[in-house]
Amino acid sequence: MLLTDDAPIREQRPYHLAQWAEQAERSVLRQMIDVVSRPDILSFAGGLPALELFPQEAYAEAMARVLHDDARALQYGPPYKPLKEQIVALMAQRGVSCTLQQVFITTGAQQALDVLTRLLLNPDGEVLLEEVVYTGMQQALAPHGPRILPVSTDLQEGMDVDVVERWLTTGARPAFIYAIPEAHNPLGVSLSAERRERLVGLAQRYGLPIIEDDPYGFLSDGETPPPLRALNEEWVFYVGSFSKILAPALRLGWIVAPEALAPQLTVAKEACDLESSALTQRAVAAFLQAGHLPGHLSRLREAYGRRRRAMLASLAQHFPAEARWTEPTGGMFVWVALPPGVDTVALLERTIAEEEVAFIPGHAFAIPGCQANHCLRLNFSNATVAQIEDGIARLGRVIGEWLIRD
Amino acid sequence: MLLTDDAPIREQRPYHLAQWAEQAERSVLRQMIDVVSRPDILSFAGGLPALELFPQEAYAEAMARVLHDDARALQYGPPYKPLKEQIVALMAQRGVSCTLQQVFITTGAQQALDVLTRLLLNPDGEVLLEEVVYTGMQQALAPHGPRILPVSTDLQEGMDVDVVERWLTTGARPAFIYAIPEAHNPLGVSLSAERRERLVGLAQRYGLPIIEDDPYGFLSDGETPPPLRALNEEWVFYVGSFSKILAPALRLGWIVAPEALAPQLTVAKEACDLESSALTQRAVAAFLQAGHLPGHLSRLREAYGRRRRAMLASLAQHFPAEARWTEPTGGMFVWVALPPGVDTVALLERTIAEEEVAFIPGHAFAIPGCQANHCLRLNFSNATVAQIEDGIARLGRVIGEWLIRD
Repeated sequence: MLLTDDAPIREQRPYHLAQWAEQAERSVLRQMIDVVSRPDILSFAGGLPALELFPQEAYAEAMARVLHDDARALQYGPPYKPLKEQIVALMAQRGVSCTLQQVFITTGAQQALDVLTRLLLNPDGEVLLEEVVYTGMQQALAPHGPRILPVSTDLQEGMDVDVVERWLTTGARPAFIYAIPEAHNPLGVSLSAERRERLVGLAQRYGLPIIEDDPYGFLSDGETPPPLRALNEEWVFYVGSFSKILAPALRLGWIVAPEALAPQLTVAKEACDLESSALTQRAVAAFLQAGHLPGHLSRLREAYGRRRRAMLASLAQHFPAEARWTEPTGGMFVWVALPPGVDTVALLERTIAEEEVAFIPGHAFAIPGCQANHCLRLNFSNATVAQIEDGIARLGRVIGEWLIRD
Repeated sequence: MLLTDDAPIREQRPYHLAQWAEQAERSVLRQMIDVVSRPDILSFAGGLPALELFPQEAYAEAMARVLHDDARALQYGPPYKPLKEQIVALMAQRGVSCTLQQVFITTGAQQALDVLTRLLLNPDGEVLLEEVVYTGMQQALAPHGPRILPVSTDLQEGMDVDVVERWLTTGARPAFIYAIPEAHNPLGVSLSAERRERLVGLAQRYGLPIIEDDPYGFLSDGETPPPLRALNEEWVFYVGSFSKILAPALRLGWIVAPEALAPQLTVAKEACDLESSALTQRAVAAFLQAGHLPGHLSRLREAYGRRRRAMLASLAQHFPAEARWTEPTGGMFVWVALPPGVDTVALLERTIAEEEVAFIPGHAFAIPGCQANHCLRLNFSNATVAQIEDGIARLGRVIGEWLIRD
């Protein structure tokens, strides 16, 4: 077995852990990353940005300057105002108007999800989630054990807003709804403009906070609809990240939230890690100040666009006619639905054994009570066009044989 | 009023927050840091290490090398094994024998406290705390709203282990006890060797996890008793930090915990921020690998020792005979008890107004139901000997007048 099954981790010693921890499972995705990071494996599994595109030299320069200029870069300090100003300017590029007082620096987007969950969710609370959800959000929720109200997702237009409305009109009052409107992880779909408007309208009418997770917003091709936060500033809690536009190891992200909640957000954030690295905040601000980002984003869009188009073309060429997949305009992932009955966990064992190619089985993203066993997620950001063409052909071959044999 | 009173933060909009957040107060200490960081104030308030002692150049070199050598420094990655090896070696210097599998990298010690709290504490749980407690621990606990079982502390020998035993023999089964055995924050006291043995014995007998917070362990003068983790590896969860021995802006710390709990600790940590910065982990490992730490620690011990002795001598010279204070052998703080009835919050307003000198009122550290209104905490790490001699004289003058007038 490549994956451990759903059995809870058994404790080896007589510790009395918090109830959620007694039941804790490591995210299947995080486990898999260990398995599929073998150097002989061609992996479409992870969610890694392309290492060769990191602005390594420019960031090293910014870091050196900051460390040379001011010892306060190594000290405790309040959120770094010049970085917050840069984030306000970045948000304007996404069509979002916000103030310095609405921006909260976090230690990556994961901490933003954790902080917002702590802020909004009571132990006996409910949340609205799509049937497949980014595993980081599932991990942030796990300690709280909320009741989950599932929402289906259309692979062309995104989250099914009718289902959201049905929950709300029948009396549900969830603590929040979680959404990745732009280039969904794992689905790759973007929420249509019309659905964005409707979702925000429901949030406003019912007082439903939306956590809008937008790691890929700056990477989309051409014209995309505005993020939810551009449509509503009262109920949309926007989460941004430097992980995909600069580098994950910075562990730097941000929240745009109503200023009225600043005291509570500050308390919740300080409980997590006191503050985010002053050094990183200053180095990123210096990098942005030097004007490196626009050119870097163009290079990323160009490279990821090429890889994305190569993957879509290869899927059309090599995957069986029964397969369906999303057609993303950005982000890092394509979602593939094979005929019902195909078990992609077992398929993965075969593709690794026979072709040394890896992906993530859809199961890894399914919320409790839902299933995506016949689906898989493919990452296109961390492989060359040649690797993509070769790897998708090899995957297609195994899947084709599977459909004939099984 | 310098400080806001204990009223909860009122929400300005009709958000339904988690119950704890509706009641949230910003740590008095964190609020104060804003107030007393005015440049005209001579501050003994914060807990800042000395900025002029940061190994800025050596760290900049390590960072530049790491950023130049390997783009993986900017990527997602598993905990960096060479750093874990360095931590195992550091722990050996503290008399602690541990394995790589027992070391968990965290984003500063605050995250370690947060993760251990989540791991060990249920919503209806209990914890054993001293009557004055580091505010970061109180912040980590706040979202869980535990029942607190208070333990008194002797200003010469540390935590009153008899009281701990009384709680346990009368049936209390707290989720954990929190301790800073070496150079307590805020008290400055170190737990005596005999009490360390007894505390660990109780933990073993009753299955009581101890969170041993050890930010100052590497800074103590001369011979100190071993940390609790050196006495017991089953029930002591050791928390270490690079904040005070290298720099706070690294936001890097570690837990030494039983290997049996590795899966649950990993899950809890990933829920917080996925992982700690690969870049910082590699830069700190390179700094340590280059052999910079021993010399740096000597310089810190020498400088902080000088400042500590200057503060203790100045207190003896300038503070009224009715005052009592701790005599730390390390750390960063001296705790002063004035005669009961003195309100150090009001005193602080006066020392700022009349002498532009600041400290932290004891109240900031008191757990609910306990009080330390006549006490204050003085920091000696972030002021020169001349500033300490001058500032303590000025504080002593205001206190002397207060005792005569009020």
